[in-house]
Amino acid sequence: MNISHIEHIGIAVENLDESIKYYEEVLGMKCYAIEEVVDQKVKTAFFLVGNTKIELLESTSPEGPIGKFIEKKGQGIHHIAFAVDNATEALKLAEERGVKLVDKVSRKGAEGLNIGFLHPKSTQGVLTELCSKEE
Amino acid sequence: MNISHIEHIGIAVENLDESIKYYEEVLGMKCYAIEEVVDQKVKTAFFLVGNTKIELLESTSPEGPIGKFIEKKGQGIHHIAFAVDNATEALKLAEERGVKLVDKVSRKGAEGLNIGFLHPKSTQGVLTELCSKEE
Repeated sequence: MNISHIEHIGIAVENLDESIKYYEEVLGMKCYAIEEVVDQKVKTAFFLVGNTKIELLESTSPEGPIGKFIEKKGQGIHHIAFAVDNATEALKLAEERGVKLVDKVSRKGAEGLNIGFLHPKSTQGVLTELCSKEE
Repeated sequence: MNISHIEHIGIAVENLDESIKYYEEVLGMKCYAIEEVVDQKVKTAFFLVGNTKIELLESTSPEGPIGKFIEKKGQGIHHIAFAVDNATEALKLAEERGVKLVDKVSRKGAEGLNIGFLHPKSTQGVLTELCSKEE
């Protein structure tokens, strides 16, 4: 698997506006995009730090994955996403190496990326996303 | 605050050897250093992904911060560390901006870096480290 860099860190937040304020006014970052991913029941805000993004995630429904995460664990780091050449091929390779997958093939995520998740039970407790621009 | 990039992502693990095996054999990364930080009661393993490090943390004592974290939350992402020019100055600035600090001044962390933590109560639930080579 050819991981080039950490594409983003996903952070579950209760209130997107308040969290954007913290990242901008305390840490001095700049939110460059806000996007709703209807499929995932989230509204996201993006910041670039070096060549990695911080992706803040506010749930648009208590039934969505971020809503459930916050109910169980509170706000905090939700997942780590690694950039690969081809997400579907990388998912396949992970499965061959014994990883349980959340997504068998990639689907469209925020910013038009092809994304897929590995199950945290197979990844030492870390919800892990693989994503690629090309497919 | 001048954050240049994400210096590392700290991940709490139960068994360092097993986790190293996962990062190497499944994700194809290479562990380049193992270091014990006696002060923090942890043994750490480092991987470089782009210009960000993955820092795996195994507790050497149930009384240490990672031991307590795992007891409460299980294995998973523990903290995010941002690279700044001067950790002590960045900590001071964060405090002036209303952040509660874990460390008032920087101390020595793994790899000889000057490090300090912001309290997750002030950082939207994310345990946040600031670190610098120079001081």
